[in-house]
Amino acid sequence: MIKVGIIGSTGYVGHELLRILTNHKKVKIAQISSYSYEGQSIDSIYGNLNKISSLMCTNPEKVIASSDLVFTALPHGLSEEIAEKCLEKDKICIDLGADFRLKDEEEYSKWYGKNFSKPHIHPLSVYGLPELNREKIRTSPIIANPGCYPTSIELALMPVLREKLIDTKSIVIDSKSGTTGAGRGLSQTTHFPECNENILPYKIGEHRHLPEIQQILSEMANTSVKVTFVPHLLPVNRGILSTIYCTLNETKDVGKVHNIYKNYYEKEAFVRVLEIGKTASIRNVKYSNFCDISLHMDVENSKLIIVSAIDNMVKGAAGQAIQNMNIVLGIDEGEGLNFIPPAF
Amino acid sequence: MIKVGIIGSTGYVGHELLRILTNHKKVKIAQISSYSYEGQSIDSIYGNLNKISSLMCTNPEKVIASSDLVFTALPHGLSEEIAEKCLEKDKICIDLGADFRLKDEEEYSKWYGKNFSKPHIHPLSVYGLPELNREKIRTSPIIANPGCYPTSIELALMPVLREKLIDTKSIVIDSKSGTTGAGRGLSQTTHFPECNENILPYKIGEHRHLPEIQQILSEMANTSVKVTFVPHLLPVNRGILSTIYCTLNETKDVGKVHNIYKNYYEKEAFVRVLEIGKTASIRNVKYSNFCDISLHMDVENSKLIIVSAIDNMVKGAAGQAIQNMNIVLGIDEGEGLNFIPPAF
Amino acid sequence: MIKVGIIGSTGYVGHELLRILTNHKKVKIAQISSYSYEGQSIDSIYGNLNKISSLMCTNPEKVIASSDLVFTALPHGLSEEIAEKCLEKDKICIDLGADFRLKDEEEYSKWYGKNFSKPHIHPLSVYGLPELNREKIRTSPIIANPGCYPTSIELALMPVLREKLIDTKSIVIDSKSGTTGAGRGLSQTTHFPECNENILPYKIGEHRHLPEIQQILSEMANTSVKVTFVPHLLPVNRGILSTIYCTLNETKDVGKVHNIYKNYYEKEAFVRVLEIGKTASIRNVKYSNFCDISLHMDVENSKLIIVSAIDNMVKGAAGQAIQNMNIVLGIDEGEGLNFIPPAF
Amino acid sequence: MIKVGIIGSTGYVGHELLRILTNHKKVKIAQISSYSYEGQSIDSIYGNLNKISSLMCTNPEKVIASSDLVFTALPHGLSEEIAEKCLEKDKICIDLGADFRLKDEEEYSKWYGKNFSKPHIHPLSVYGLPELNREKIRTSPIIANPGCYPTSIELALMPVLREKLIDTKSIVIDSKSGTTGAGRGLSQTTHFPECNENILPYKIGEHRHLPEIQQILSEMANTSVKVTFVPHLLPVNRGILSTIYCTLNETKDVGKVHNIYKNYYEKEAFVRVLEIGKTASIRNVKYSNFCDISLHMDVENSKLIIVSAIDNMVKGAAGQAIQNMNIVLGIDEGEGLNFIPPAF
Repeated sequence: MIKVGIIGSTGYVGHELLRILTNHKKVKIAQISSYSYEGQSIDSIYGNLNKISSLMCTNPEKVIASSDLVFTALPHGLSEEIAEKCLEKDKICIDLGADFRLKDEEEYSKWYGKNFSKPHIHPLSVYGLPELNREKIRTSPIIANPGCYPTSIELALMPVLREKLIDTKSIVIDSKSGTTGAGRGLSQTTHFPECNENILPYKIGEHRHLPEIQQILSEMANTSVKVTFVPHLLPVNRGILSTIYCTLNETKDVGKVHNIYKNYYEKEAFVRVLEIGKTASIRNVKYSNFCDISLHMDVENSKLIIVSAIDNMVKGAAGQAIQNMNIVLGIDEGEGLNFIPPAF
Repeated sequence: MIKVGIIGSTGYVGHELLRILTNHKKVKIAQISSYSYEGQSIDSIYGNLNKISSLMCTNPEKVIASSDLVFTALPHGLSEEIAEKCLEKDKICIDLGADFRLKDEEEYSKWYGKNFSKPHIHPLSVYGLPELNREKIRTSPIIANPGCYPTSIELALMPVLREKLIDTKSIVIDSKSGTTGAGRGLSQTTHFPECNENILPYKIGEHRHLPEIQQILSEMANTSVKVTFVPHLLPVNRGILSTIYCTLNETKDVGKVHNIYKNYYEKEAFVRVLEIGKTASIRNVKYSNFCDISLHMDVENSKLIIVSAIDNMVKGAAGQAIQNMNIVLGIDEGEGLNFIPPAF
Repeated sequence: MIKVGIIGSTGYVGHELLRILTNHKKVKIAQISSYSYEGQSIDSIYGNLNKISSLMCTNPEKVIASSDLVFTALPHGLSEEIAEKCLEKDKICIDLGADFRLKDEEEYSKWYGKNFSKPHIHPLSVYGLPELNREKIRTSPIIANPGCYPTSIELALMPVLREKLIDTKSIVIDSKSGTTGAGRGLSQTTHFPECNENILPYKIGEHRHLPEIQQILSEMANTSVKVTFVPHLLPVNRGILSTIYCTLNETKDVGKVHNIYKNYYEKEAFVRVLEIGKTASIRNVKYSNFCDISLHMDVENSKLIIVSAIDNMVKGAAGQAIQNMNIVLGIDEGEGLNFIPPAF
Repeated sequence: MIKVGIIGSTGYVGHELLRILTNHKKVKIAQISSYSYEGQSIDSIYGNLNKISSLMCTNPEKVIASSDLVFTALPHGLSEEIAEKCLEKDKICIDLGADFRLKDEEEYSKWYGKNFSKPHIHPLSVYGLPELNREKIRTSPIIANPGCYPTSIELALMPVLREKLIDTKSIVIDSKSGTTGAGRGLSQTTHFPECNENILPYKIGEHRHLPEIQQILSEMANTSVKVTFVPHLLPVNRGILSTIYCTLNETKDVGKVHNIYKNYYEKEAFVRVLEIGKTASIRNVKYSNFCDISLHMDVENSKLIIVSAIDNMVKGAAGQAIQNMNIVLGIDEGEGLNFIPPAF
């Protein structure tokens, strides 16, 4: 049994990793850590885990020492050092934070206000979107798990960018996220009476997922892509829905575009391209590792409208990280991830 | 005391009219009608109205006979005949349905599957967006109250269209609406377990508010305007938030655009242009007649992002209808509409 | 115009006072204060108040100096000193906190961990439940506004206790409250993802409203009454629903009990005794000053079941405080409080 | 592989059976049926099942013919005939409806307005609460799966009734249920704008789960037990929370009662007795087969307060039915049911 560890296990993403890994057949959680709750058992913090796990929160050193593969679910700036230690000890690190997502240090500095602290290890990392980088993931000691918004957006746009079907200057992305995206930390914005019965656009043009999105879309298009991106906070727990608008270069035939998507994702277990006439929604993917994509056409304006939906905590975070773990460990890619989204 | 009547008083819009009119100081509700509940008292249908109103639901004829001004809150196709009767008896008709919103009969036929039944009276009607047509409203016997989505969109775009600041081919509108917009009728989509914890894009490119939006925006721009419009169903009761993307022709200076908006709406009691840095949201307008507008800039892409928020049942329906009533009756425009949006 | 002030204006209760008082015809808000936001304008804190009020938050001294009547909406322990200053300057103080609710200092010490700091002024205060103490309220310089749970419970039980219809040892109270009851302060319990899709019983047998409830019920019954009381946190913004179980002494005829309630509250503008067969719910009272009461019978077990519903922020806090203000100032009791609960 | 079938697969309970059974390791779904959707594939009705199941809905005959064990998830009155057919063909029937829950035909007639249609097969059925009847379930050809409210209540009261610790005349049950309990059928009560931001007591003293609760509690207590029961509709999708009040006969020592519960449920995989000081809530059990129970004491009134929480669709319906299936088929009781409740 392969041993895995979680550093930052009491945040929402860390919790979700633990929840999914507990039922995984090929790996075993060796140790978990938490800066805030060291010395406490996980079920004393999360009552839902009663009778399921009473692992004690230790510290990063113990987690690394006892694990073959380490997940880091930490605020940005804390994972580089841990990844370096993993490298030294020949262990794999899957980072669910932002430290390894951006390739360009200057861009990182601009958005995060600091330089890379371990620049020499960055070239060893891979951007962990399996549908894009599966082969590289197999052999990378450091895997940068994608952000939640970027996952929903990059999967939605990959086929049209790769096939050069759209004007890359025309992309407008209107995303809506559930509140777990903001994590376990308290804020006025996620205080129930102020979040409930509302929808709030936020960080317009300032969200740190924007450079990540642009980096990957540019890579896909093989040209620099700049997008307009507005995230919104929804009064739901889970899920991201991205409504993406772009101008088609030639065809206005949505059926043709649909075929390209169907072929493109034919072998992908976790991407579902919906039939024409159906519309992606959070409801059909929540609590699962699926990304649903639907295609729509505004013929009059030559606009292709792509709707994509994921569960931000699963395909947008912990589920995708475990998918990456399965790939790098040579396990069946879907192991532990066969959740069927409940209808309600 | 001026006597007013409500035809279609048991739907959500009809109920909201009754609720607001009950506290109006200058008019009195004479009669109300309902096709489904004729002979029943309104508080037997709406328990919230207990001790407040026990008006009996009668029929349209009695409402017209006893009123100086009649509100119609009916499915499309039912108001033209009533409006004609009002005209004959020299009474004003404010229609909250779709019958008089579209000027072009062909366009109406295309979207509603039928012709005008009383084409001769259409030229007597005015589109009741006070900020656009206040003077015409004063003297019109038939007022077509705008749709909820159109209200949020037209107010948001009026200044840039009038001042020709944007590329009219670039407009993308991503709107999100609360569930009361779908009315009191039951549907799987608004069944609690299927609507809750979801967001659902719907009727993409097919929503009947699209021709209305395009008609009014074209009028404002003095050129034909086609927009991309995607409505979404939100798991909240009230409110519409529209996030609107458009390309600025020249300036990228959001401050300059902001000044234009401030000047434009300076004297409008129910439009609030937020300071730069603030963001419009449903929370700050619900249960009020306000339309909040905030302006944001994606400099990199020369995109102006306009966010507007209204309460779909107030400024988007009953409140605006009463604002129109006040105008046509020569009453203070804000009478009965001084609701302060609650913070929660 | 009578001048009123609000001390603690940026908490939820303070905000609600300001919102309602702004439209009051007979009083004017002179000054408001806030410990946390001194020097800031209220609309910079509450965006909903944009264009409505830009009062600056000052300090308690200035509020008292400029007002004829002062509302205190503060954590317990802070109002006694303010009330004393009001007394000295011959001003009325309506306290929405807990400082004057309990008559018995020992009981207060037990539940709040401190003694009265100004015991000599307590005899001058009255418990401000208008339906119980209207005459005393008219002449009291200090009015202790009831807690939200107590209001919903005391109004529900007053007729059966006064008329000695029930076994006073049999009372079980299961109350459910919206999240605004917990105020604006942040907590894990009211963090959206943890509060949403849940119902949480809390402070079982330990809620500070229990001694208040027992004090007033004992007064009504003219004998010591001890109740079992379990509050629950609901995933809604507003409202309290109390389901109250008690054993009838003799009659099992719910019609007879219903008549007693109807007579009892006949002249009360803000208490609605529903017809038999109807059930009270939050929906029908929210955003209003009403308390709805419905009566039900479990004949087999001789249990009378009383359901009562209020809006915790209106009849359970700010609305009732303004009702008390109207009484003590000799204004029409309903002035400023004619809110019609919206159906949605 | 054992073959199972679902009759009534498109209702919420039927869907939930299908969702859970799809990942079950020891059984295979042979056929499903639906009266409303015969001839349609299940993923055309439930979009969440896209890529997961495209079983066609057939009819009951085909389901019975192709299955070793049949689940019936039907409105009352339709399962007896199916169960008889299963018996004839030597197949097991697990009924998730009400047809076999009540032993007493007279009681059944009183609450359901009709007699048993197949009285001779009723003696062959068992009430499928595993914690109560595990041994009988092993050999019963017809298993009456308990109602959702009854499950939450019976598990909560079994230890105190068996051990005769409480006054059986003192039981008051205040239950709160999510909206999926009302099923997929549309109603004004579960229309989003009317259900949201509300809590609604309903069917007070008239709910059809009452005779079932009383039958089982009486069996546990070995004496006739009548309870006061008030169900409430909550604005959440899933879950039932029951707050149960009863008078202790002797001890007021909650620790002692707690020990009895701990011992009682020590070997039960799906019942979690929380530590003293913790409180059961829907949040910690949703999407799982757990029943959480917490114990609280109102010493002053000698009241024991028991709080129990289940997911109404899992332990309250489909999960428990599959637990029963595992028992009757001799499979590990927890197979397919190892869901870890997500924290959010």
